[in-house]
Amino acid sequence: MSEFLQRKKTCPIQVGKVIVGGTAPISVQSMTNTKTNDVAGTVAQIVQLDSVGCDIVRLAIPDMSAALAIKEIKSKVQLPLIADIHFDYRLAIAAIENGIDALRINPGNIADATHVAMIVKEAKIRNIPIRIGVNAGSLEKNILEKHGGHPTPAGMVESALQHIAILEKMDFRDIKISLKANDVPMTIKAYQLMSETVDYPLHLGITEAGTIKSGIIKSAVGIGALLAQGIGDTIRVSLTGDPVEEVKAANEILKSLGLREYGPTLISCPTCGRCNINLAEIAEQVEQKLSNVRKPVKVAVMGCVVNGPGEAKEADIGIAGGKGQGLVFRKGEVIKTVPEDQLITALFTEIDKLIEEEN
Amino acid sequence: MSEFLQRKKTCPIQVGKVIVGGTAPISVQSMTNTKTNDVAGTVAQIVQLDSVGCDIVRLAIPDMSAALAIKEIKSKVQLPLIADIHFDYRLAIAAIENGIDALRINPGNIADATHVAMIVKEAKIRNIPIRIGVNAGSLEKNILEKHGGHPTPAGMVESALQHIAILEKMDFRDIKISLKANDVPMTIKAYQLMSETVDYPLHLGITEAGTIKSGIIKSAVGIGALLAQGIGDTIRVSLTGDPVEEVKAANEILKSLGLREYGPTLISCPTCGRCNINLAEIAEQVEQKLSNVRKPVKVAVMGCVVNGPGEAKEADIGIAGGKGQGLVFRKGEVIKTVPEDQLITALFTEIDKLIEEEN
Repeated sequence: MSEFLQRKKTCPIQVGKVIVGGTAPISVQSMTNTKTNDVAGTVAQIVQLDSVGCDIVRLAIPDMSAALAIKEIKSKVQLPLIADIHFDYRLAIAAIENGIDALRINPGNIADATHVAMIVKEAKIRNIPIRIGVNAGSLEKNILEKHGGHPTPAGMVESALQHIAILEKMDFRDIKISLKANDVPMTIKAYQLMSETVDYPLHLGITEAGTIKSGIIKSAVGIGALLAQGIGDTIRVSLTGDPVEEVKAANEILKSLGLREYGPTLISCPTCGRCNINLAEIAEQVEQKLSNVRKPVKVAVMGCVVNGPGEAKEADIGIAGGKGQGLVFRKGEVIKTVPEDQLITALFTEIDKLIEEEN
Repeated sequence: MSEFLQRKKTCPIQVGKVIVGGTAPISVQSMTNTKTNDVAGTVAQIVQLDSVGCDIVRLAIPDMSAALAIKEIKSKVQLPLIADIHFDYRLAIAAIENGIDALRINPGNIADATHVAMIVKEAKIRNIPIRIGVNAGSLEKNILEKHGGHPTPAGMVESALQHIAILEKMDFRDIKISLKANDVPMTIKAYQLMSETVDYPLHLGITEAGTIKSGIIKSAVGIGALLAQGIGDTIRVSLTGDPVEEVKAANEILKSLGLREYGPTLISCPTCGRCNINLAEIAEQVEQKLSNVRKPVKVAVMGCVVNGPGEAKEADIGIAGGKGQGLVFRKGEVIKTVPEDQLITALFTEIDKLIEEEN
């Protein structure tokens, strides 16, 4: 972790093989968008999410057929699974019985306290944590009334504390919490308040963030701002689209803060009037070629010799373009000068060498 | 501005018609990547940047022909222009004489103090602010040595303070400051330190952020984290690629924090196993159709009736899909139930109405 970040230490919980909170690495979550009772489709998507760096997968459990499908899905995948359940305690019990690793359910939404007790009893026996997930858009009426008729950070925290109190009364503390809103400053404020109030791990996300393009920016700002303040133990980027994109974006957010090493990091300067090579095209080519590299390699693609080697000193490998020729450098040292049309080839020769050395 | 954000008040400066700092809206900057002495090409790009919501444009001034081109460029564009100059005081003087609105130049990099004095004299006469731009990759040797041989936030701030001191000694305070690094936590820390130390407006950016895809996330995290802490008066997203994408990303960052209203905001839920309509496709269609709308309209596209109206209560207009049918709502109230295949048509009828009403 970067020396410039200080992370708040929460009480760790365990979701299958993944520890969330404490000093555990910040984990990446996503949610399948298949019908959960389509076992083959759901398994295929989970495997795909695994392959792009997802740590935990959530499944919607809208009915009993979905809850029963968990058993077969679990037997075919490696990643821990969380059941997303609304209101119906029987689905929660069935999910636990079928081997789910964690639940997302709000106990305050279950009318009958004996039903909550049944869930808690089963969850305790099998060490199944529960995520309390507060959404600004579905706050309880009494809380809305108390907080001026509309969602507020304090109202969101109060809602979470009510759900927590129900579980704590039953001596259940295997909890994590999310407080999602589509308003980013409200979300940030809510998590800040929550982080000051309890030591449970926090699951970060911006809800209804939007389509891939705008949603990624909204999530990066909201989740990134909190992580930069040391808040957050597990994250989910919510996008309207392929969950694979959610995982890729989440990894980029963590990488940008030095909180995860995964695959290549490309440093490339903005193109400007000083630039004499087709930097954008080269950078895109480099990015594409690096897309199969899983090792954390830092590669710099710089437009001009002025800023090139200096600015990218921290990179493992880099190139800097010039007038018709370019420099190849490693760890800030120039190792070669080549004609411009051989620059990419020279770069990839170096990348291949580096990967070989590290194997 | 969101009630959950508190912005640090800096001493405002004026870049052409745009105020930077104080209580002025946070402005969006970009940089042309044309050859500046290609007047037609540069003007065309500035006009294009203007049309997507750019407030200030920076031009590279690597030689005298670029400095001389400023005059003609200025006469053909509306946006304030900043000259990006390294080392050569003559280019700075020429840029001022040719009508530039601000300079980006580091006085400490100009060997001869009388040359700095010449720039300052001209800048004072015409109210031309100077941006001091510190890059982690090109810190002065004495500073690097003092700070352990590598760039640190404190080292970056110290470098900026040295440049500032040169200008302040000449009684020049028409200054803004940037402290860029490609390391996001280092950048955040540097700006935090700077913000505690001086009241000059701060220009935020992450340098060498990378290609459009990864660079946008890195910039959103770094710039967003600072803005969320109330730090920053003007921003530039640096991408290796079309500067139009920089401006669009910058606007999305500001919009996500409620710091700018520009065009439509689309709220759409993540697709999940509860979703019975092709949400991703609908959201993309809505986004595309809205791309010509300049008015700030909040539109919600929700997958299911459960979370739909509740979650998107704050939206101006929204749709929520269901099993074969959907709801159309305005300001949280359901106004219509339509068959699913008429949902988008119904949505756009409402959007058109809203735009008409507001005209």
